[in-house]
Amino acid sequence: MNRQIILAERPRYLMPTHNCFELRQAPVPAPSDGEVLIRTLWLALDPYLHGRMKRINSQAQPVAIGDVMVGATVGRVQTSNHPDFSENDLVVGFWGWQDYCVSNGSRIMKLQTELERSHPSYALGAMSRVSGLGAYISMLHVAKPKPGETVVIGAATGGVGQIAGQLAKMEGARVVGYAGSPEKCDFAVKELGFDACVCHRDPDFGEALRDACAEGVHVYLESVGGEPMDHVLPLLNHYARVPVMGLIAQWSTGGTNANDTRMAFLTQVMAKRLRVEGVISNDFFQSHFRDFQTEMANWITTKQIKIVEHVVDGLEHAPRALQGMFQTGQHMGKLVVKVSE
Amino acid sequence: MNRQIILAERPRYLMPTHNCFELRQAPVPAPSDGEVLIRTLWLALDPYLHGRMKRINSQAQPVAIGDVMVGATVGRVQTSNHPDFSENDLVVGFWGWQDYCVSNGSRIMKLQTELERSHPSYALGAMSRVSGLGAYISMLHVAKPKPGETVVIGAATGGVGQIAGQLAKMEGARVVGYAGSPEKCDFAVKELGFDACVCHRDPDFGEALRDACAEGVHVYLESVGGEPMDHVLPLLNHYARVPVMGLIAQWSTGGTNANDTRMAFLTQVMAKRLRVEGVISNDFFQSHFRDFQTEMANWITTKQIKIVEHVVDGLEHAPRALQGMFQTGQHMGKLVVKVSE
Repeated sequence: MNRQIILAERPRYLMPTHNCFELRQAPVPAPSDGEVLIRTLWLALDPYLHGRMKRINSQAQPVAIGDVMVGATVGRVQTSNHPDFSENDLVVGFWGWQDYCVSNGSRIMKLQTELERSHPSYALGAMSRVSGLGAYISMLHVAKPKPGETVVIGAATGGVGQIAGQLAKMEGARVVGYAGSPEKCDFAVKELGFDACVCHRDPDFGEALRDACAEGVHVYLESVGGEPMDHVLPLLNHYARVPVMGLIAQWSTGGTNANDTRMAFLTQVMAKRLRVEGVISNDFFQSHFRDFQTEMANWITTKQIKIVEHVVDGLEHAPRALQGMFQTGQHMGKLVVKVSE
Repeated sequence: MNRQIILAERPRYLMPTHNCFELRQAPVPAPSDGEVLIRTLWLALDPYLHGRMKRINSQAQPVAIGDVMVGATVGRVQTSNHPDFSENDLVVGFWGWQDYCVSNGSRIMKLQTELERSHPSYALGAMSRVSGLGAYISMLHVAKPKPGETVVIGAATGGVGQIAGQLAKMEGARVVGYAGSPEKCDFAVKELGFDACVCHRDPDFGEALRDACAEGVHVYLESVGGEPMDHVLPLLNHYARVPVMGLIAQWSTGGTNANDTRMAFLTQVMAKRLRVEGVISNDFFQSHFRDFQTEMANWITTKQIKIVEHVVDGLEHAPRALQGMFQTGQHMGKLVVKVSE
């Protein structure tokens, strides 16, 4: 028989309950010509699955009621009627929560490396396009930690955090994790080589984190959101990089974040891959001001750029003009005060 | 006499009132050897001045009570005892809200371009390190709008917005502004060449903005924050770039944003020049997966990277394991379900 776990109903609360799932027994499917029968070996559970269970999902089609739950899977080809696959080939795919599936080969991929063939579950984690690739991109392409910088990793022992932290160590950074239990924190330090790890459920989490980040935080890998972020934010150094990979607290804190506009905003940042950057122009004075002036003078002189000024006449009117700028906003263009001829 | 406007008291409410300022008459200062006497010609009023009036300021020392209000200024050298400056030289500096100042030359700069010498107030706006350079960096170095993309500019006719919008037009983008009055909107379209501009005080602002951005928003220059952002966020396309240059609504909406965690967060983004990026690893599958797998396999095999997995045994335990992931977080490492041998 093919055991299948189907979505029986959508989560009514923030978290899925056992009512959401139903075990169904189905016959083992038979592969036709050009198809393979795969026996599931491993199934990955990832935070995004919660989103797939909901009615509305900004990133992907939700699972239909009565359908097999989705999820990344690794399996072994049991019967092959497909020229590209042989019996016993190990493959990775997305056939979900069931013992068997039939595939025409278009949405499965053979495990590529010797490492995965000897540890097939790695194809769902460290070697996968979800956890492993995510940690790799966040650290090496987005955050780019430099030697000596302090990197804070949320969910330090999780699928992404464990790898991201070790990559940051390889780059020469100081790595401080946070996790949900003292055991996880011990593990992160002793086994994964993190420099420190603090438990975000401890009442003195904020203080402990601050002590562990004596030189502030240069990179913060956000995968949690919610309250821990309140303690990380004040420690962020100028020009800190914050890749947002997950916001598990959004779904797991029982709704206390429902009205948190920051969480709603970060959900958009993640779902839409926004890049939000603080820009203070004076920082670019040394590097760009001369080029800027030459170009801008040319643009204005050739009338490619028009300039609008709102002129307030007389120093004595400056206070009222400043108030008006915030209140009525009645000026148009750059507000300048003419003090004398 | 040298009229000086001093900070008499700090703003008690969100906005400065006239009680905050006092006009003081002082003698015109006399320049010593190596000094110049400058007659103020122009004074710029910028949103950041409000921050300088407050007791606590994350970015700069606040103005002391009784001190001359700070602000960017342009003036003409009236007397020079300094070898580098001559009478009638035009200079830009930061001597603040007063008719005259004496300088030893260290914090003033001669106007560099012919354009500024004929329009000295431009040195405080379009040609300045504040508005002009800010618009230039935000558009050409951070947001980089591409031809055909839609760029939304907050405070469209303001010191930064007017320039940023025109730069985006020069790059070939479609530019949609928003501003606080129909007159400003008309001006942005007819005089500055914006493709559209909508009034954010209109009750149908959200709808009008959506209509003006039929293909979504690729770049949003944030200089306002607050309610307008609520209407821009849903329109942002994937990979939208959001340079945060100002949050004037933070200071001017009478406190309705005091508890808005998004505004508090964006204030940090701006003050600390954070770069916050949404990262979804699957986006990098085509471009990076092969390199990633080769490197990661090597790191794991050579034990540079350790892998932690939490194995749940049996497909039937998957639902409970998924619940546990959100509730207790008791697993350590990548959570995988072993379905069969």
